[in-house]
Amino acid sequence: MLIVHATLVVQPDKRDEFVNAFAGLAETTNKEDGVLSYTLYESAATPSSFVVVEEYKDEDAFHAHMTSEHFQAALPLLSGVLAAPPKIVKHEAQDGVEVALG
Amino acid sequence: MLIVHATLVVQPDKRDEFVNAFAGLAETTNKEDGVLSYTLYESAATPSSFVVVEEYKDEDAFHAHMTSEHFQAALPLLSGVLAAPPKIVKHEAQDGVEVALG
Repeated sequence: MLIVHATLVVQPDKRDEFVNAFAGLAETTNKEDGVLSYTLYESAATPSSFVVVEEYKDEDAFHAHMTSEHFQAALPLLSGVLAAPPKIVKHEAQDGVEVALG
Repeated sequence: MLIVHATLVVQPDKRDEFVNAFAGLAETTNKEDGVLSYTLYESAATPSSFVVVEEYKDEDAFHAHMTSEHFQAALPLLSGVLAAPPKIVKHEAQDGVEVALG
């Protein structure tokens, strides 16, 4: 599988516009074949700094997402609200193992 | 390396108490040997639902964190504010590769 952490720093005055627009992208993306999860989170310590935690079945699924119509259509919106270039880091990973606490 | 996603659902009226207390844990944890990153994020779609995105050099570093004094001391606080048992999933992973957009 593939784990992707996409860090997005948004202009503070564009935060709500970004969150609302991203909700549509996330909804469509989570319906794609091979997308295991695709969730937007905001840093608790640094408002308007976000991470998208993305999990894909494999590299092909990730490529299919990045070249999808809905993702490509979202890029102009993203570039209009970001305060810095996005940092997208992918990791080849093994399937998750649940860990008990304590 | 190891990637850990720890999902924590907090009682809404305990959200601020949780975020403030977690800041101290995150600060100490990020100084541990072998901790590459340890960051608390809140779901944009579901307030009071959090993920801790954790990256460790290896299994030993993760074990050292889970058995550390500061993490063990935080457990009673966590159990007092969580609305559901935490879900902690770890992945053996390769080092990240940065991906260019578009």
